[in-house]
Amino acid sequence: MSFPSDAIAALATPVGTSAIAVVRASGAQVPALVTAIFGETPPPRLARHADYKDIAGRLVDDVLFTFFAAPNSFTGEDTVEISCHGNPFIAQRILEDLFARGCRPAEPGEFSKRAFLHGRLDLTQAEAVMDLIHARSERALTAANQQLRGSLGRQMDSLISQLINVLAMVEAYIDFPEEDLPAEDRAAVLRSLAQLKTDTNRLLATSHYGAMLRDGIKTVILGEPNAGKSSLLNRLVGRERALVSPEPGTTRDYLEERVLVGAHALRLIDTAGLNPSPTSLEQRGIEKTLEQAAEADLFLWVIDGTRPLPVLPPATAQRLTPENTLAVFNKADLGGGQVSVPTLPFPTLRVSALTGLGFDQLPPAIAQLADAFQNQVGSEIIAINARHAHALEQARACLDSAATKLADGVDTALVASDLRGTMDAYGQISGKIDHERVLDQLFATFCIGK
Amino acid sequence: MSFPSDAIAALATPVGTSAIAVVRASGAQVPALVTAIFGETPPPRLARHADYKDIAGRLVDDVLFTFFAAPNSFTGEDTVEISCHGNPFIAQRILEDLFARGCRPAEPGEFSKRAFLHGRLDLTQAEAVMDLIHARSERALTAANQQLRGSLGRQMDSLISQLINVLAMVEAYIDFPEEDLPAEDRAAVLRSLAQLKTDTNRLLATSHYGAMLRDGIKTVILGEPNAGKSSLLNRLVGRERALVSPEPGTTRDYLEERVLVGAHALRLIDTAGLNPSPTSLEQRGIEKTLEQAAEADLFLWVIDGTRPLPVLPPATAQRLTPENTLAVFNKADLGGGQVSVPTLPFPTLRVSALTGLGFDQLPPAIAQLADAFQNQVGSEIIAINARHAHALEQARACLDSAATKLADGVDTALVASDLRGTMDAYGQISGKIDHERVLDQLFATFCIGK
Repeated sequence: MSFPSDAIAALATPVGTSAIAVVRASGAQVPALVTAIFGETPPPRLARHADYKDIAGRLVDDVLFTFFAAPNSFTGEDTVEISCHGNPFIAQRILEDLFARGCRPAEPGEFSKRAFLHGRLDLTQAEAVMDLIHARSERALTAANQQLRGSLGRQMDSLISQLINVLAMVEAYIDFPEEDLPAEDRAAVLRSLAQLKTDTNRLLATSHYGAMLRDGIKTVILGEPNAGKSSLLNRLVGRERALVSPEPGTTRDYLEERVLVGAHALRLIDTAGLNPSPTSLEQRGIEKTLEQAAEADLFLWVIDGTRPLPVLPPATAQRLTPENTLAVFNKADLGGGQVSVPTLPFPTLRVSALTGLGFDQLPPAIAQLADAFQNQVGSEIIAINARHAHALEQARACLDSAATKLADGVDTALVASDLRGTMDAYGQISGKIDHERVLDQLFATFCIGK
Repeated sequence: MSFPSDAIAALATPVGTSAIAVVRASGAQVPALVTAIFGETPPPRLARHADYKDIAGRLVDDVLFTFFAAPNSFTGEDTVEISCHGNPFIAQRILEDLFARGCRPAEPGEFSKRAFLHGRLDLTQAEAVMDLIHARSERALTAANQQLRGSLGRQMDSLISQLINVLAMVEAYIDFPEEDLPAEDRAAVLRSLAQLKTDTNRLLATSHYGAMLRDGIKTVILGEPNAGKSSLLNRLVGRERALVSPEPGTTRDYLEERVLVGAHALRLIDTAGLNPSPTSLEQRGIEKTLEQAAEADLFLWVIDGTRPLPVLPPATAQRLTPENTLAVFNKADLGGGQVSVPTLPFPTLRVSALTGLGFDQLPPAIAQLADAFQNQVGSEIIAINARHAHALEQARACLDSAATKLADGVDTALVASDLRGTMDAYGQISGKIDHERVLDQLFATFCIGK
């Protein structure tokens, strides 16, 4: 693992006109840089007000700057944060001056990469920084904050230390190939491998929840034509997103909108109505509806409360469970005295898209379903991402292979090799094993200045 | 003048996804607020790393915060700057928490208004903060920086102290209405008034330069159809902004683009060609061209070097001077050996839009003309804005009126009244005289968080 030696600089705030903008630079040359620009390097963390003059001596702006001494900075290197007036032209002038003085433009994610390389963050924490920046719901924020504070790292440390014990037991026999693993040791190792697999599966099971946190919970609104699906979308979005008309089949293409419901971000999808006797154009819309339903996390089944209960297509019907479906009986205003609704095995709500009746109960009812998606491993919220899932699947395959070989009495050295494969896979997650390629791929998805 | 007592809070950086975002709050309650959130109020200006937990105890983000003690802050009040991760959702959560804890949303410009009310900035300096944030050229930046450092304020202080001397002299006679102003005093006062008027006019003369700095130098590209005006625009803008074709009259509506040339921001305007025998559609485009030319600061007159020198419409021709016009002879590639161009009383350049020949000399040639626009009063760059101009015109009218009354031997008390009117007008510029209404109008044009 090679340590970076050059100083990097980037704009840390969005480009735009505002009160302030922040430019930061990191690297061993920063104290010399700060002294060259401001005449002195003040004590760490002490904000100073000063003129920023460029290398040619031209006044650029009056700024507030703060020096952070290694290793007590985000990157673990000497760092300076310069707050200038929030003018992209000024921020650019300062950046160009820093480049003229020997800094180079930071690559996307390079500040976080340096934090990782200097041991300030493990990879799961570095990823949590990005999750924090992109979190758009309370739950996503909580999960990212927990991951930043090491929740996933601790789980991985625990798996790795269990694995080290097993590996130590197995490797002790490699040096004595004439001796076979005694039956009781073999049984103990198999039990440990089974436990590791259970724990690995438990983490893997949080992968879909991770996707929901990062992308939103895919929530499909479905029902017959003219049941009031688009009205429901509009109510939840808070504006006239979808065209609404008394004519059945107004919605043709499905629409997607992001919306916050309680602590959750939803990808809310309004679909073409499931007409039992569709025209050919409607049929194409219905096919899209069914595709969306096949991948949904949550269903809002909108039912015209004044008509007989419709029958859903079997493939869709079997995806609906009491845990993922809310049945919404619309047109309660027309229902008159008819307060009872057909008994369904789902939570049920009566609303009127026309009068607004019942809509105040809709977000809490959806939030209650979404609450149940949260994945907890022990006391910690865990929501792994695709990279973690890939590594855990690799680890699981190696564990399976080791267990099979052990059960079949294959040479202990081959079992040990599988266990080292497991270790490699676990190690990729927190990055405690060096994989330059993994690093570069990971940090390239970060934003510049972080 | 009433001093603000409530704490205000706002996002100080643009809304967007980035490395960091900064939220700030200002007011006497800030130390109590900081202690409530973070458990302590650290020494001023010392950046602290801490968890931000909202009023309900939920972790929002880990942040860096810096406390600034009154009066040594931008506003002159106790202030806190909170750097969180650059996620609009997080910044919004922090802001909402600050509101829940008793801050209120800052109005546009309210931080700067408080800086003014606490005597940290005069009005010209507060305006300079906005000019700094909006400056898009080196020159605009320099002028804003000088104004922030009090250049205009010093000019006004000097005018005001001269005026105070005159006023003292005149008012001394008001208490003795039976005595008339002695002839020598009257002459001295008239000389002082003439000097004040000269100085006022000198400041007023910088108003147009101020507009050029703030809005860009209005630079009109004109010439006959097919002379290569749009090619020139595209070269200066650095991309295919305008449609270009060999067909004369390709550009119909005028186009406007902002472009930096040297230290200057230009509003570059490409116009329909001045066809001597236009169709009726062309005629309407030409009218627009002439309107633009009537208000231009700079002219780029593009001439087809292979054809006889065209004749410009008289109203336009008389606006062209050696100080504001660059004659650009295009199609130098076709000119072959014919190196000489017609002698014109303007700086001249030979270019080829086809081959790019000569275009490297275009920006320096334009910059040289633009350099001459800079207005200096004494050693300081002054570029007043419309508000200053309005006040200076009022002051000048009062000075004229006072001088006339004095010359006509009108009652000294009426002369003194005019001089106090002058004082009022001067005072509005730096805001040293209280005008709540002027203040509210001024700061309402600022951005929120500044």
